[in-house]
Amino acid sequence: MTEIITSLQNERVKLAHGLQTRARTRRKERKIVLEGAKLIQEALDRRHKPFFAFYQPDTADYEMVAALQDRKVELFQVNGEVMRHASDMETPSGLLAVFPLPVPPLPKSPRHVLIFDNLRDPGNMGTMLRTAAAAGVDVALLSPGCADPYNPKTLRSGMGAHFRLPVVEAEWYEIRDYCDGLTVYLAAGDGTLRYDRADWKKPWALIIGSEGEGAGRQAEEIATTRIHIPMAAQTESLNAAVAAGVVLFEAARQNFPDE
Amino acid sequence: MTEIITSLQNERVKLAHGLQTRARTRRKERKIVLEGAKLIQEALDRRHKPFFAFYQPDTADYEMVAALQDRKVELFQVNGEVMRHASDMETPSGLLAVFPLPVPPLPKSPRHVLIFDNLRDPGNMGTMLRTAAAAGVDVALLSPGCADPYNPKTLRSGMGAHFRLPVVEAEWYEIRDYCDGLTVYLAAGDGTLRYDRADWKKPWALIIGSEGEGAGRQAEEIATTRIHIPMAAQTESLNAAVAAGVVLFEAARQNFPDE
Repeated sequence: MTEIITSLQNERVKLAHGLQTRARTRRKERKIVLEGAKLIQEALDRRHKPFFAFYQPDTADYEMVAALQDRKVELFQVNGEVMRHASDMETPSGLLAVFPLPVPPLPKSPRHVLIFDNLRDPGNMGTMLRTAAAAGVDVALLSPGCADPYNPKTLRSGMGAHFRLPVVEAEWYEIRDYCDGLTVYLAAGDGTLRYDRADWKKPWALIIGSEGEGAGRQAEEIATTRIHIPMAAQTESLNAAVAAGVVLFEAARQNFPDE
Repeated sequence: MTEIITSLQNERVKLAHGLQTRARTRRKERKIVLEGAKLIQEALDRRHKPFFAFYQPDTADYEMVAALQDRKVELFQVNGEVMRHASDMETPSGLLAVFPLPVPPLPKSPRHVLIFDNLRDPGNMGTMLRTAAAAGVDVALLSPGCADPYNPKTLRSGMGAHFRLPVVEAEWYEIRDYCDGLTVYLAAGDGTLRYDRADWKKPWALIIGSEGEGAGRQAEEIATTRIHIPMAAQTESLNAAVAAGVVLFEAARQNFPDE
């Protein structure tokens, strides 16, 4: 608890830096880094326990440091240079922790499935996961070619969604099998059905592609219904995360309880 | 047309750089910079005419350079160093043009008004303007304290929305007068009315604040109805641009024509 790390050659510092910068390291070590009290709290709330944590006494959230101490987490005080090296943020929050890579189970009878098709932007992915958790999605499936969901940018923009929603990488044949029996919607500029005319009360899956590219072949193959969002003012498209939000909350709205 | 600029001391280069980096310069000169063929096309489509343009022959969109030539726009070839200095992009598109600062007129009888309350993130603002244009908003009003809408980041994420929608900076007393007779909605976590229960067929204004901060005093004063978006999974909030999209498209949906 009182050990102070000041060397970039320290093994834990090297590990944290590697986990922040390389998906390969995260996969090999099966560990991720969470930065800041809010994200760490989300993980603790879901019974994830960190291997160890780094903090700077002058900037770290004091209550979270105490909470980690209570849980007997190995805590290391670090200096500014070490924190900047281990952190992914321009202005580090003063606290980060190394956790096991989450391995969420696939829900057995999902009713609301989100599928990312080759979505490569880490920040957009996190924003969409945050939206999906808020809209009551049961599981997010990531096709091959997607960004790593445990990229620090995705974790940050996800704002804890990773711990409220199973986020699962899958092959297309697994996605196809999993979606058997669901209506599989694909959002596309030339979709035939208006998004709000779909019946979102029946179990569904929704495929979201990356902005600027059409859906891939495998996505087209498993889609049963192509939907579109009508737009005014000769606008061609929406930001991909906004479009996902519009469709996911139309689905949520149709399932809101009558008050 | 054949003049080649290679000096960062050139007056036009200094002007473009100043317009890209300082809101004060944009206001004083009453000029803005648009980068890339798509944004320039949006402005040309709405009869804005640039004072001059810079291009690099190897990367610029050839058709757009020809279109500018046809319109007798002063065209200057520049080298890579000049383009990087005049551009706001990490990878410049090879074409930028200096336009007059747009001065859009305020619509007389607006039915759908978007109000930004102290919104300081330029990228988020552009994404919301893009969404607003697509959702059929008549005018976007910016309260004091908002980011400059002609910031290059706002222009880029707006994807041309600035030319499809009047974007007008205003004092709070002007906003209040302008919204007289409209139902003024304010999105807030503790809003009493579910956003989809509001009657968006009647003329409305919607106030959007910045993420993480509550609405300001003036926004609270002119708001007539506070709305909220229900969320699952103990999610506290949505990304501000996503939340704006969800509400704006619920408003649009209620006004979609029956097909």
